[in-house]
Amino acid sequence: MDEFIIRGHVVNPVAIDRATMTDSVVHVGADGRIVARHDAGTPMAARVLDHAARHGMAVHALSPAQLLMPGFADLHVHAPQWPQMGRALDLPLREWLEQRTFPLEARFADPAFAAPVYDEMVRTLLANGTTTAVFFATIHEESSLLLARTCLRHGLRAHVGLVAMDDPALCPPAYRNASVEQALAATRRFIHAVRALPGNEGGLVRPMVTPRFIPACTDGLLQGLGTLAAEEDCLIQTHCSESDWEHDYVRQRTGVNDTVALDRFGLLRRGTVLAHSCFMTADDMALVHARGAAIAHCPISNAYFAGAVLPLRRAWQAGVHVGLGTDISGGYSPSVAVNAAMAVTAARMLDSGTDPDRPAATRGAPGSRLTFTNALWLATRGGTAALGIDAGQFAAGQAFDAILIDRAAPGSNILPPTHGEPDNVAEDVVQQILCNIGRPNIYTVWVTGRKVHGTDVTVA
Amino acid sequence: MDEFIIRGHVVNPVAIDRATMTDSVVHVGADGRIVARHDAGTPMAARVLDHAARHGMAVHALSPAQLLMPGFADLHVHAPQWPQMGRALDLPLREWLEQRTFPLEARFADPAFAAPVYDEMVRTLLANGTTTAVFFATIHEESSLLLARTCLRHGLRAHVGLVAMDDPALCPPAYRNASVEQALAATRRFIHAVRALPGNEGGLVRPMVTPRFIPACTDGLLQGLGTLAAEEDCLIQTHCSESDWEHDYVRQRTGVNDTVALDRFGLLRRGTVLAHSCFMTADDMALVHARGAAIAHCPISNAYFAGAVLPLRRAWQAGVHVGLGTDISGGYSPSVAVNAAMAVTAARMLDSGTDPDRPAATRGAPGSRLTFTNALWLATRGGTAALGIDAGQFAAGQAFDAILIDRAAPGSNILPPTHGEPDNVAEDVVQQILCNIGRPNIYTVWVTGRKVHGTDVTVA
Ligand SMILES: [Zn+2]
Ligand SMILES: [Zn+2]
Repeated sequence: MDEFIIRGHVVNPVAIDRATMTDSVVHVGADGRIVARHDAGTPMAARVLDHAARHGMAVHALSPAQLLMPGFADLHVHAPQWPQMGRALDLPLREWLEQRTFPLEARFADPAFAAPVYDEMVRTLLANGTTTAVFFATIHEESSLLLARTCLRHGLRAHVGLVAMDDPALCPPAYRNASVEQALAATRRFIHAVRALPGNEGGLVRPMVTPRFIPACTDGLLQGLGTLAAEEDCLIQTHCSESDWEHDYVRQRTGVNDTVALDRFGLLRRGTVLAHSCFMTADDMALVHARGAAIAHCPISNAYFAGAVLPLRRAWQAGVHVGLGTDISGGYSPSVAVNAAMAVTAARMLDSGTDPDRPAATRGAPGSRLTFTNALWLATRGGTAALGIDAGQFAAGQAFDAILIDRAAPGSNILPPTHGEPDNVAEDVVQQILCNIGRPNIYTVWVTGRKVHGTDVTVA
Repeated sequence: MDEFIIRGHVVNPVAIDRATMTDSVVHVGADGRIVARHDAGTPMAARVLDHAARHGMAVHALSPAQLLMPGFADLHVHAPQWPQMGRALDLPLREWLEQRTFPLEARFADPAFAAPVYDEMVRTLLANGTTTAVFFATIHEESSLLLARTCLRHGLRAHVGLVAMDDPALCPPAYRNASVEQALAATRRFIHAVRALPGNEGGLVRPMVTPRFIPACTDGLLQGLGTLAAEEDCLIQTHCSESDWEHDYVRQRTGVNDTVALDRFGLLRRGTVLAHSCFMTADDMALVHARGAAIAHCPISNAYFAGAVLPLRRAWQAGVHVGLGTDISGGYSPSVAVNAAMAVTAARMLDSGTDPDRPAATRGAPGSRLTFTNALWLATRGGTAALGIDAGQFAAGQAFDAILIDRAAPGSNILPPTHGEPDNVAEDVVQQILCNIGRPNIYTVWVTGRKVHGTDVTVA
């Protein structure tokens, strides 16, 4: 790969409560990592441009309507539910699983069924600006490995989990692991196979230990997976305190909340991704924080299946790693941006409450609001930091995982500031992007400097 | 205009709780109205196709991934807030008005500022599939008339209101009517001018009497506008019971709720469009129903400015006309579909509640859910029926206001059913459209048979 330079507006999530929009010069090295980002017009920027000219590097100048931002991180996707996206959202969680979702996932026993689904999904996620994704696959080794290969082929940074689920009380005969031993052996084989995939020497695609959720797994399986994750030094993902039903089910079975149960099984570790986590106490949050685990906030899915909104501000203030998940197909959108806007909207509805029959003073949970700047962080650096990935910000040393947004593209619903609006208020620009971004706005997408979608602007 | 035929999948909102998806033959007459819609394969359909062949009419066959649906009706748009869309959503209603919105609207005193804004807005709404829009303009006659002309030029079916607001207690000196008499004379002139616009003989663009909301208007102005609306037989629009602040303000000033106050001023009539209406009693609903007025539900705006969600099911069950409004820029999206999906999501959050700290049994307002089929009705026929317009369904005699959706378009996030999913479940297809439609999916848009956006498929 050749080094290159991009000059123009850069939106950068600096912290969870701060983003900047600056005219910048970004230097991407031959290894796909950011060498430097400087404010335009500074001596440092001039030095970079001078260096580029002397070495004949490609320099791409963005138009005033274009801007560069980090790629999106999607911390929770059910890859095999892709054909069901935007369908069947009318059922409660348990019926939705039994009647629609388990039968669909069972079809992935056939890799010939899986191949076009996974190909379409990975290409569509990239086209929506997702550069890091965390996948639940299915219990099937061959098609789950095919998913890992598909990510690698298209250049999507991914974590792929072979799903483990063995409890006959919840899992149907046609779709569950045969035994604890079978599930553990398969998971271990899968971890080794993903790590050994040709072309994966840089670790773009990583395996994940993936107990579906406590209700679907026996104690023996959960314990075994905890041990395995430690032995293999492998990240973990699962669902946690998602809905009243799930939360109560776990309390009845284990006598404790999900977090404590997961911790006892060795499943709460640095980098563990807990989807949802709506029903958490302060003690739960403190435990997740102490272990260095992360919460994948899935605001659309919350509305349809959780029956409540994760008080995300509380997680953030407890120091917990937080990012966003589309939760396809419990969530209907493949776009992290759509979920980011929904995180802000849902936080408002948690803050103010929803029921006009209640007096304003007792309607909501004041103090729950999020800003769009917060949401940008969740959608980018919050997610990559949760996974321990050096990406998600324009900072020296981080991978160049980025999106070139074109606000003047034909078909744009993001309005370029042509009527005299200021164009240097990061919160406003971030709000416009997260609220109204569409596929026409996503001009180019890069992962580690490699163009993975759109037009290669760095080639003359 | 030449008659034409379209054959293919048709999604039709039959009632608020029923939609169909059928392979159809739709015959559009030279007047832009639907002559007939028949199920494909029936003798009636064969007769239409035979008639078309004999008369050399254009017959366009949709691909399996395409479908025809009614155009969207947007019952509440603040046209001059267009440059602010997707910005400034962090302020409470009153500050948002005073610090950002009134100063922006005041700029429309200059038609040269208004012209490019209104042109961009109308083209963008059409490109998002909106075929009927209800606009608040500003207090300025010249630029408001320019908005009416812009709608007419681009072929958007529209209702345009010259805003009336005269109370110095709320309206700034630089942006309010000089007196009751001035406001009434201007409104009367505006009504006549819109009705007399060249090219508006068919009444595509209609004027509306538009008191901003009770807090911005003196009693004398409200009374005068009620009388004027009756004299001119002109539809009315205003805001109603939007937020705790607004609702309490009106109760303090008038001693009654908005609906009763509006009714006393003669402003609650057949076709009156009441934006928001979140804080309504059963008596309010019954009064709105008795007068034949309508509610414009603005679910995104509710989350940011109302502090509660309109219990839309309650309005529907009281027999009130209901439609959707984007409430640009209190709402961030120009897409009625995005608002329709949010109506379903918000209703779930009203139904289940949002605060996980409360027990499930007392968290929400059960019985508040909406289906995507309900939302389709709100987005189409609910809105047109509220305004007394014969459009919004594929039925003989109605205007052909329609969208051709292409699920296989490059850049589509609506997945065509290529992995064996059934493609005849209207609720699923409607859900996919409302949740994941993007501008690339909107291939052609017609108003009264005239192509107003996209590709003219009926020309050979
Ligand atoms: Zn999930
Ligand atoms: Zn409004």
